[in-house]
Amino acid sequence: MKKMIIASTSTIHGGTYLSYILPELEAFFKDVATVLFVPYARPGGITHDEYTAIAAKGFGTINKKVVGLHTFENPVAAVENAEAIFVGGGNTFLLVSQLYRNKVMEVIRGVVNEGTPYFGTSAGSNITGLTMQTTNDMPIIYPPSFKTLGLVPFNINPHYIDADTQSKHMGETRETRIKEFHKINTQPVIGLREGSWLAVNGEEIVLKGDLSARIFEQTKEAYEISTGASLKF
Amino acid sequence: MKKMIIASTSTIHGGTYLSYILPELEAFFKDVATVLFVPYARPGGITHDEYTAIAAKGFGTINKKVVGLHTFENPVAAVENAEAIFVGGGNTFLLVSQLYRNKVMEVIRGVVNEGTPYFGTSAGSNITGLTMQTTNDMPIIYPPSFKTLGLVPFNINPHYIDADTQSKHMGETRETRIKEFHKINTQPVIGLREGSWLAVNGEEIVLKGDLSARIFEQTKEAYEISTGASLKF
Repeated sequence: MKKMIIASTSTIHGGTYLSYILPELEAFFKDVATVLFVPYARPGGITHDEYTAIAAKGFGTINKKVVGLHTFENPVAAVENAEAIFVGGGNTFLLVSQLYRNKVMEVIRGVVNEGTPYFGTSAGSNITGLTMQTTNDMPIIYPPSFKTLGLVPFNINPHYIDADTQSKHMGETRETRIKEFHKINTQPVIGLREGSWLAVNGEEIVLKGDLSARIFEQTKEAYEISTGASLKF
Repeated sequence: MKKMIIASTSTIHGGTYLSYILPELEAFFKDVATVLFVPYARPGGITHDEYTAIAAKGFGTINKKVVGLHTFENPVAAVENAEAIFVGGGNTFLLVSQLYRNKVMEVIRGVVNEGTPYFGTSAGSNITGLTMQTTNDMPIIYPPSFKTLGLVPFNINPHYIDADTQSKHMGETRETRIKEFHKINTQPVIGLREGSWLAVNGEEIVLKGDLSARIFEQTKEAYEISTGASLKF
């Protein structure tokens, strides 16, 4: 059975890496000793080793070992043999490019569908959707496709942020961007605010955390769902 | 001789469409009766006709006629025969996809290099750079390439915005995103604040408007250049 935590962010304001979600992770990974970490998104351009050390420190507080996918000669086998997978945030274009280059996109989809627990934050959550096309990131590298894992039947917009009505900046709001997406794409988009996550158990998808989430469907006005609610489309 | 105005935005806070830059446009287009407008970027998903009407209204105040590129059966010939070109803002991924689909990317590069005046705002400015990879837009469509006009020897980041030090949002700042770009790309990036533009005359490129611009080179700390300064790399 599919088991996933799809989190908007790794770190909330005033917290440390993963601190806000550690109780949830402790329960989610209770039968897992070692988590396979995918460091490809390289936030701020840090190296795979540096990023893996950050993840290891976060997971160390709940006594889990972390190994970086980049340390395996055969990434496909590493995914197939993983007890659990954590894909960290950073740049989604880089993450998707590397997943395709290392031929693990389909393999991750397969093992997660078969029950390997999956935890994603930010870019690592974006890629659980049908496509990466509602990322907030800069296109710093040209990926072979925008298609992603499709483990949930919609797209994710992590770090969702409401329009700042006081702003004098004329760049588009997040909601405007998602509306532009819906002029030429049909799938729903879940705007996940920081500190929110989706808990996936088989076909059940529940919003967790303190905040509501904003749902965008192509032919409807955007609306909110409350924490604790199930997502159904 | 190459003659371009590369503007961060079409509209500044409290102004109307193009109002802040009309005196500059009046001088720039003084020998031009009709401007060819490229509406492909469709801000907010509006139609090509709707967008062309907005551009026509703006240019009407300086007595210029505007025709939409989408109204021509042969877009290549329309570009070749244009007195001047204006590429409006919106979604850069959509703009670039449509420029390639209509086979006008190279044609625009050619005529502008030969002296056809070019005015761009936002996405229309981003594409004057070497690649579109420092856009702020969502990847709502997969373009055949991120390579753009390369009419200036760097990349543009329009709507450049400084970090809000009061923000509790954990998404990346614009500067962080551009630094990530420079982990895997070498070209300089010009962060053009709203109300700023680059005036290009042949090989001379001068910053105009009230504000300074922020320059990012791969191996240097980011720095500011003052309005009136020439850009040289």
